[in-house]
Amino acid sequence: MTRTPTSSAAAQASPYALTVVGIVAYSRTAACVRYAKDADKAPTMDSRVALLHMSAWEVGSFERVVERAGAEGIEAYTEAERFASLLGDLDERLRPLDWAERLVKTYLIFGLLIDLGMALSDFLPEPLRTGLIDELAQDPIGSCAAMELDSAISADPQLAARLGLWARRVVGEEIGTFQRLLVQFPELLVGASAEQLHEVLSQGATSRMKGLGLRV
Amino acid sequence: MTRTPTSSAAAQASPYALTVVGIVAYSRTAACVRYAKDADKAPTMDSRVALLHMSAWEVGSFERVVERAGAEGIEAYTEAERFASLLGDLDERLRPLDWAERLVKTYLIFGLLIDLGMALSDFLPEPLRTGLIDELAQDPIGSCAAMELDSAISADPQLAARLGLWARRVVGEEIGTFQRLLVQFPELLVGASAEQLHEVLSQGATSRMKGLGLRV
Repeated sequence: MTRTPTSSAAAQASPYALTVVGIVAYSRTAACVRYAKDADKAPTMDSRVALLHMSAWEVGSFERVVERAGAEGIEAYTEAERFASLLGDLDERLRPLDWAERLVKTYLIFGLLIDLGMALSDFLPEPLRTGLIDELAQDPIGSCAAMELDSAISADPQLAARLGLWARRVVGEEIGTFQRLLVQFPELLVGASAEQLHEVLSQGATSRMKGLGLRV
Repeated sequence: MTRTPTSSAAAQASPYALTVVGIVAYSRTAACVRYAKDADKAPTMDSRVALLHMSAWEVGSFERVVERAGAEGIEAYTEAERFASLLGDLDERLRPLDWAERLVKTYLIFGLLIDLGMALSDFLPEPLRTGLIDELAQDPIGSCAAMELDSAISADPQLAARLGLWARRVVGEEIGTFQRLLVQFPELLVGASAEQLHEVLSQGATSRMKGLGLRV
């Protein structure tokens, strides 16, 4: 465990930086949990292990975020803890009916969280800005979802239609969560406006859906 | 992913070795999932991250088991898959009421799985025997459970009494699962007898309960 001790420099970090670090750090741990839970429902041992690898990758990613934030005097554990209730139940509202719906949901939700983290990190001072953006850019979720879903979707137009509807519900629901986040943590609007963030999230979700061959 | 290709040597491995590798490999992935699910219920960010680290450690452990089995011509993915239904719902029957019951349950169940894996591995040919036993011996679950529970239990005799009853239910239930395993995979009785395995599991559970300060 490489927990960073609280530093006196923390007092100098802006409320914006503290909140962004909290969101990015917490979302890394939420991804660990989600990928492991998905692994447990995977139809094959190969998918199970691929998702467990992604889960383990996110643990490493969390530690890198802790280190990068710690270098700027920000205690990421403390900041992350504030988001447990809001970001902890991202996946509780919409129940997937099968493995394909489950994967689409995970891919879109954690894709949105990555987009949000990158858009918010863009207004941080360097070197934290590049550190967090680079970390989020390396997330393996995209290639995993594509690998698991591409062939299933292109082989079955009915599945594509059902997953397209499902994807729109997931995106609508989660963009709502992020809007509540902005209301609850108004310091986040120091950088981009709520409209700009909404636009970034919508575009990211659209391009992920198109990438999977789903109608938008 | 370091998936071992099926080797022609696999035909030479005994049914006993194939089954033991399957149980040990599957139980590593079951531990990943369980620790991540527990992390999601952890009361503090520190416990959450400690459990996620353990989960990530189990992914590495699974890969080492795959490698060691692969060196003997055994395809651990294929063997593991056979245990998904029997070992996949180890945790579904008994619902913990709180965090302490949850941790006790995880500690005892995965402790029993480690003991079973070690007892079964003891009858494998070298170098697989030592490879698997060493791997299982390094599992971090013991130190984590002790760290989380020790002070809570010693400070609260009522909690200790409740957890003692709970622990006995968990152990009884899971020893039953392992007895079904022996019935379903009779090749496992080539090494130790069912009575000897039962004895090993009971003793391991007893010493874990005593280690936590629970009445046996």
